[in-house]
Amino acid sequence: MTDTPSLDPYKGVRDFYPEDQFVQRYLYAVMRESVESFGYEEYDASLLEPAELYEAKSSEEIVNEQTYTFTDRGERRVTLRPEMTPTVARMVAKRRKELALPIRWFTIANLFRYERPQKGRLREHVQLNADMFGLSGREADAEIVELAASILLNAGATMDDFVIYISSRGLLGDLFELYGVDTATRPALTRLLDKKNKMDENDFRDKTAELLGERTNDFLATVSSAEATIKMLGDDHQALRELTELVSDLHARGIDNVRILPTLVRGFDYYTDMVFEVYDTDPENNRSMFGGGRYDNLLATFGTEPTPAVGFGMGDVTLYEFLASRDLIPAYRSNADLALCRVDAAVAKDCNALANRLRTRHGIHVRVDLTDRKVGDQITGADKSGIPFVICVGPNEIKSGQYTVKQLSTGTEKTVAEDEILNALEELAVTDEESPEWTSEV
Amino acid sequence: MTDTPSLDPYKGVRDFYPEDQFVQRYLYAVMRESVESFGYEEYDASLLEPAELYEAKSSEEIVNEQTYTFTDRGERRVTLRPEMTPTVARMVAKRRKELALPIRWFTIANLFRYERPQKGRLREHVQLNADMFGLSGREADAEIVELAASILLNAGATMDDFVIYISSRGLLGDLFELYGVDTATRPALTRLLDKKNKMDENDFRDKTAELLGERTNDFLATVSSAEATIKMLGDDHQALRELTELVSDLHARGIDNVRILPTLVRGFDYYTDMVFEVYDTDPENNRSMFGGGRYDNLLATFGTEPTPAVGFGMGDVTLYEFLASRDLIPAYRSNADLALCRVDAAVAKDCNALANRLRTRHGIHVRVDLTDRKVGDQITGADKSGIPFVICVGPNEIKSGQYTVKQLSTGTEKTVAEDEILNALEELAVTDEESPEWTSEV
Repeated sequence: MTDTPSLDPYKGVRDFYPEDQFVQRYLYAVMRESVESFGYEEYDASLLEPAELYEAKSSEEIVNEQTYTFTDRGERRVTLRPEMTPTVARMVAKRRKELALPIRWFTIANLFRYERPQKGRLREHVQLNADMFGLSGREADAEIVELAASILLNAGATMDDFVIYISSRGLLGDLFELYGVDTATRPALTRLLDKKNKMDENDFRDKTAELLGERTNDFLATVSSAEATIKMLGDDHQALRELTELVSDLHARGIDNVRILPTLVRGFDYYTDMVFEVYDTDPENNRSMFGGGRYDNLLATFGTEPTPAVGFGMGDVTLYEFLASRDLIPAYRSNADLALCRVDAAVAKDCNALANRLRTRHGIHVRVDLTDRKVGDQITGADKSGIPFVICVGPNEIKSGQYTVKQLSTGTEKTVAEDEILNALEELAVTDEESPEWTSEV
Repeated sequence: MTDTPSLDPYKGVRDFYPEDQFVQRYLYAVMRESVESFGYEEYDASLLEPAELYEAKSSEEIVNEQTYTFTDRGERRVTLRPEMTPTVARMVAKRRKELALPIRWFTIANLFRYERPQKGRLREHVQLNADMFGLSGREADAEIVELAASILLNAGATMDDFVIYISSRGLLGDLFELYGVDTATRPALTRLLDKKNKMDENDFRDKTAELLGERTNDFLATVSSAEATIKMLGDDHQALRELTELVSDLHARGIDNVRILPTLVRGFDYYTDMVFEVYDTDPENNRSMFGGGRYDNLLATFGTEPTPAVGFGMGDVTLYEFLASRDLIPAYRSNADLALCRVDAAVAKDCNALANRLRTRHGIHVRVDLTDRKVGDQITGADKSGIPFVICVGPNEIKSGQYTVKQLSTGTEKTVAEDEILNALEELAVTDEESPEWTSEV
């Protein structure tokens, strides 16, 4: 016997069996319906990008250590995209003159990072990205933050389940200025602040002291809370005032869980102004889930005129964990609504014709059992596959045109003519409160 | 100024701007709705696969010359999947004992081939794959062929727009036997037959003569048509009879454009029995669009017990070209149903609140114009973006609670209360026959 290939997927990526894909489709539908309700339009692109796209713009760590980059047979360097922002910026830049700005776009796309696989750190994950191009200012920022929050709310979460932290590059710059942090020290201090929540508190303080020396205690006291920062900078400090007004705008939009967090940084170098991050408030899972911000200078790196931009990205794994911990993921059900079980192979042709009419005239998802096993086994098979309804078809049914719909979860039966089968499925699904809605339009 | 990165995507792949993605979504919806109506369940997997998955099973040309294969930093050889069948076979093999066979699965997945880019030959395309595992025999074959045809029919094509050719490995083997083609010559002759339609007729005949010598004319006469083959092999020849019965089964299923084509091969080595290909009958585009077949031995290569399997793949580009040439692709419309234009920035908060209620209570896709440009320019902007309806919101509207819905394609207006806005959109969309349906549930 020759060597058999492994049954496992490549390290760090996922197989989605139908039960898993059912959950993925639910997550994508929640994302898609939310952003579409705000009128965002879907775009897409290949995950293969020229490597040069990332070399100028992403954070160094990502380009050098975390991308899948290889050389193709034409000596081109190709990267599997690690994030979507450079791609959408490239696409907008390419048609900058034809596009009627502002534009609102989204995509649900897979991203790749070369990391050691560990819990929650996959090499491939799927991310919603939503961006607005062509509008600067607070109102566009507020819409993007509301949009991000609306996804969690539409999925059934409450405002208490998460908190939105906001800050801005301007605020951080002014704080650096106030404490005399020189230009050379700023990138290292910024990266340190970005890792604050993942670090031991003392370790964070020691590393900050290495950069700031005797200013450390004063600096950390000032950035420890919004109140402390406001006290130090004053009420009419511009960057702070802009953030306060954003909080107020969002409150008027019904989003009342927004807080200023002066140490909020976000890793990507291209952010220019407002940044935000959404945290899970569950004490057992208190961490940043996703976020975004304003990046007004990125398009100009493609040689086009400056174009303001603001957006965010939300990963499938973090959304899943957030919803699953609150029991907000629906139970699996088969995509098939109805199984036709044949009592006798002699009715095969009639049975296929019936299935065809139920599919094309009534939109019912019909699976025909072709196995010729015993009828009882056909019914058991349908039940095992999670199909909610069966009809057993024999010569009597074909002759009379009357079919008995059986709901497997309850055993309830109803005998109806062909044109009434759809109604029967709907009625039985409603009367069985345990059973999920029969329609599978996720 | 530093070098700016290119605005173009990687060679041979596509960017999908919203207008392009609208078409893609239509194609995916047609594929998905058709296979789901037969009760097929969706699965998915990463496009990264261990290279060894392909080394045993695909045709040699694909593995050696046409795959993207690279070595990761952990010295693993990784391939960007060139086809989906090895992946689904791996997944089924892994859970062979738990799965309640037969199973019906589908996916819409992107595939990669390293080819010189040319018209219609992309390096990445998207393909529907639908497969049934665990059932051998004619009925399963018939369902798969009907399913393939149903996609074209559901998209608006007629039975005259395409023809389905079928053949089998058994028929080909018997023809080889009849003409004494030895085992060593068979693979080369099979590959030659597979390329028949892409070759010049004389060239094909010459190359066949190199392999068959003086048997060439007899062989080619026999395989030139189903009738000639039947005449030579006789009515009760088993492989031919099975194909004839399959044609008859499909006819009973309403698919009456199926023909036996003895020279039909299909490129993949793993087919074991029935194979089929769907051809466009348009004389200007007469070619194979897609196909599939039975591959009963593939799962056993993973060391599991033998499991019959039959399926097909259909690419997005060929489906698009087939539908576009028959004017069966719907016209683009924005995903946004309604633009709210602000007469005065003072109503900003009320306008956002109105938008929120229209989205969450009525399911309307609402874009709020945040630009503060003149109202006429806001309306023009909505029109340019393809949004079908606008409401201009000022202090009067907020005070009275009465809103004037304007349809941009006709200029028709209707003034209604907030709770009647959805009805107004639906009524105006119906009365404007030029306009596409307002609901965007594709």
